[in-house]
Amino acid sequence: MPSPALRAIPSVVPAMKRWSALGKLARAAPALGVAALLLFAAGTGAAEPRVSTFKLANGMEVVVIPDHRVPVVTHMVWYRVGAGEDPWGVSGIAHFLEHLMFKATGKIKSGEFSRIITRLGGRDNAATTHDTTAYYQRVAKEHLRAVMELEADRMVNLRLNEEEVKTERNVILEERRTNVDGNPLSLLSEQVAAALYRNHPYHRPALGWAHEMARLSLSDASQFYRRYYAPNDAVLVVAGDVTEGEVRALAQATYGKNKPNAAIGPRSRPQEPPDIAARRVRLEDARAGAPILLRYYRVASYASARAGDAEALELLAWILGGDDTSRTYRRLVGEQLASTAGSNYESTGLDSGRLAFVVIPLPGVSLERAEAALDATIADVMANGVTQAELDRAKSALEAQRVFESDNQATLANRYGQAVAVGRSVADVDAVPLRIQQRTLEDIKRMAGEALKPERSVTGTLIAPASAENAGPMATK
Amino acid sequence: MPSPALRAIPSVVPAMKRWSALGKLARAAPALGVAALLLFAAGTGAAEPRVSTFKLANGMEVVVIPDHRVPVVTHMVWYRVGAGEDPWGVSGIAHFLEHLMFKATGKIKSGEFSRIITRLGGRDNAATTHDTTAYYQRVAKEHLRAVMELEADRMVNLRLNEEEVKTERNVILEERRTNVDGNPLSLLSEQVAAALYRNHPYHRPALGWAHEMARLSLSDASQFYRRYYAPNDAVLVVAGDVTEGEVRALAQATYGKNKPNAAIGPRSRPQEPPDIAARRVRLEDARAGAPILLRYYRVASYASARAGDAEALELLAWILGGDDTSRTYRRLVGEQLASTAGSNYESTGLDSGRLAFVVIPLPGVSLERAEAALDATIADVMANGVTQAELDRAKSALEAQRVFESDNQATLANRYGQAVAVGRSVADVDAVPLRIQQRTLEDIKRMAGEALKPERSVTGTLIAPASAENAGPMATK
Repeated sequence: MPSPALRAIPSVVPAMKRWSALGKLARAAPALGVAALLLFAAGTGAAEPRVSTFKLANGMEVVVIPDHRVPVVTHMVWYRVGAGEDPWGVSGIAHFLEHLMFKATGKIKSGEFSRIITRLGGRDNAATTHDTTAYYQRVAKEHLRAVMELEADRMVNLRLNEEEVKTERNVILEERRTNVDGNPLSLLSEQVAAALYRNHPYHRPALGWAHEMARLSLSDASQFYRRYYAPNDAVLVVAGDVTEGEVRALAQATYGKNKPNAAIGPRSRPQEPPDIAARRVRLEDARAGAPILLRYYRVASYASARAGDAEALELLAWILGGDDTSRTYRRLVGEQLASTAGSNYESTGLDSGRLAFVVIPLPGVSLERAEAALDATIADVMANGVTQAELDRAKSALEAQRVFESDNQATLANRYGQAVAVGRSVADVDAVPLRIQQRTLEDIKRMAGEALKPERSVTGTLIAPASAENAGPMATK
Repeated sequence: MPSPALRAIPSVVPAMKRWSALGKLARAAPALGVAALLLFAAGTGAAEPRVSTFKLANGMEVVVIPDHRVPVVTHMVWYRVGAGEDPWGVSGIAHFLEHLMFKATGKIKSGEFSRIITRLGGRDNAATTHDTTAYYQRVAKEHLRAVMELEADRMVNLRLNEEEVKTERNVILEERRTNVDGNPLSLLSEQVAAALYRNHPYHRPALGWAHEMARLSLSDASQFYRRYYAPNDAVLVVAGDVTEGEVRALAQATYGKNKPNAAIGPRSRPQEPPDIAARRVRLEDARAGAPILLRYYRVASYASARAGDAEALELLAWILGGDDTSRTYRRLVGEQLASTAGSNYESTGLDSGRLAFVVIPLPGVSLERAEAALDATIADVMANGVTQAELDRAKSALEAQRVFESDNQATLANRYGQAVAVGRSVADVDAVPLRIQQRTLEDIKRMAGEALKPERSVTGTLIAPASAENAGPMATK
């Protein structure tokens, strides 16, 4: 759940940007205040939905999230593959294939997919992370079947050619130039991630390294498509004005025709060696405005954690930097050291998560001084834990945020689709609110002691070059 | 060419340790003084050898280095494969296979290879780097044929079984525990390398990550062996009391029988994205004695450089830290800031090299102060270059070192074998002394400006933990 501070930073995770339409409402929640939120949520009558799941005979998982308030549906297919499956030296291929999925199949022409959705009055989008590739459409209920037919078609019938690969490769290269190379903070975030992971594929950008993207070929894309795109590697999520029975019948009639790929087995990626040394990355960039400090800690994710640990991390991140009552906000912004200070728990990874901090010092405050204040804040929580009042407030805020999000069909579909795509169950997702409420002061203190060890961390700084003179690789001024 | 300072550091490059028998003499050279060396070399009558090369019909390259002073021969086979070819998630397999090459073939029992060499009065060894795997024997001339038969046999007839894989896996795990995990400086060096390379396989230790070594299997080893061990992927080097004709006949009769592997093509590994951000790694280890600073810059290697650039780097490294007249020695040891200060150019890589600095501050001198002195020394050379006297002295020293090394059969065999195995020609190796002499002050200044850019570097520090208190991830005291 992004903090206000992290929301101020453009595209810390560039590959996620395209979900902004989905996430905007949820991310706006903290700004409204908890009390207002709870009232608002109560007013809409939103409640945790009754989600059901089943599997087609070809292995495709299906998640149905009934929501009968308006006659629209949100349709998503989540593939259990992402940039984490990019072969070494072929970074960016999962994301490239996501783009190419809008080209021709045996039934439709290149570019027609999105035109049809628009003609139906709907919207569509797609997104690639390190762990998933997801395709999204929102349409009036009566068009669900058409959408499912289209999506089932491109799951197995994509027809690529050299010309389109070449053209679309320029699109992704331009996407990288604009979103990453054109944005020093994105570049820093990329370099910090590359230092945070030494062996795991999370060390590579989901968009890919430019020099490898420039060489992505039709053959790379076709191989990746044939290997990973199949019903038994996908999760269908339908949220909206439908019943489980309707979805089952439609899914069987569309996706049910696609044959499973017997070669698909459990996911397994290279894992990290032990974290034994704290790291720093210093990016000097003439385009940098105010200096910025990013700090990432490699921690567990919901999918990788023992039950309760991700929830404790969620609470810890909130207490440390979730809103303007948080520790880092009070210590840094409150005491006139920084214009922005916050933290964020990236919790959705298959193999691990990240606890991220961001600090933008005020003019006249050195990065060293701001970092020392951040370090002191973290050290205090590691040594002394948090207060009962802080924990109670964080529980309320996370509960309110969840309730608020549950009111949004796309956000709900996203929540379950993402989780099931990395191997979690619906029951596990539904148990999160209770597990959050059950966390104790001792849980938070223990988790702070484990998660915030210096050797788990990378500290990144972005500054404008001070002068032409070489001040040594890591001079901090 | 390791500096005296780097020689003081145990196993900065652990996988190279086993070459110590070969390298010891060469590495002792600087300590003797240039004048003594030149006299000594002149006294032995050593001169650049007349090296010849040819190819067998099966694609195996052969390098013959005649040396008729004593009736012994040095026999080496260099495979054009190393830890850089370890598949992702299977780190350590190239080195593991090197160990397994001493097991049974169709003709000899497990462990018999080395016993036979010993029985013949010879010595043998092997070594794996990121770029090569080499097998070495030194025997009396009359046993050359026997050695070639044995080596040709294990190139294609290795017979591995589960039991031996299991036993030998414990050997390599113990090797790692002792040489790396038992040595904080090796651990630091490994972490610094992991930060220096973000995408290239040099970022992984040649020994492998422990958690992946523990899973190396018979199938991993067999696949790697079948894929890479073949005459058309190997370079034979014979130095000693032989003629080209003798070696040709023997090579044809032994290695000539092995079939080439048609699947072997040009080597190609994932390459680095641009170096845009300086990095730091801080290892706290209770076993650390005096604090140590390592600084690596990613630079060109002989195999990857434009002609003359690697030679300029060689001279630059010597002037900066090659001996006790060097810049870093005078500035740091001479001014009572450090007990050890030096630099070293790791020049032999296929895809890139490293310019390494090491500083061990004297008690009472902070790492910051020692690092500032190192930075000032480097900044001065980047801005102002070096003096003619320094350049002349460095040229003489490198010339003397080369002459000295040329007197040693194994060192010579190593020089040509290593170079040819990464795609260089004998002529290119032989042109190095002239290209060193041709380098100008301008060349050195330009190379310093290019190679020593902060964003190419990683700075590693090793210190004992100050106290139980958390002082923040990168507090430098």
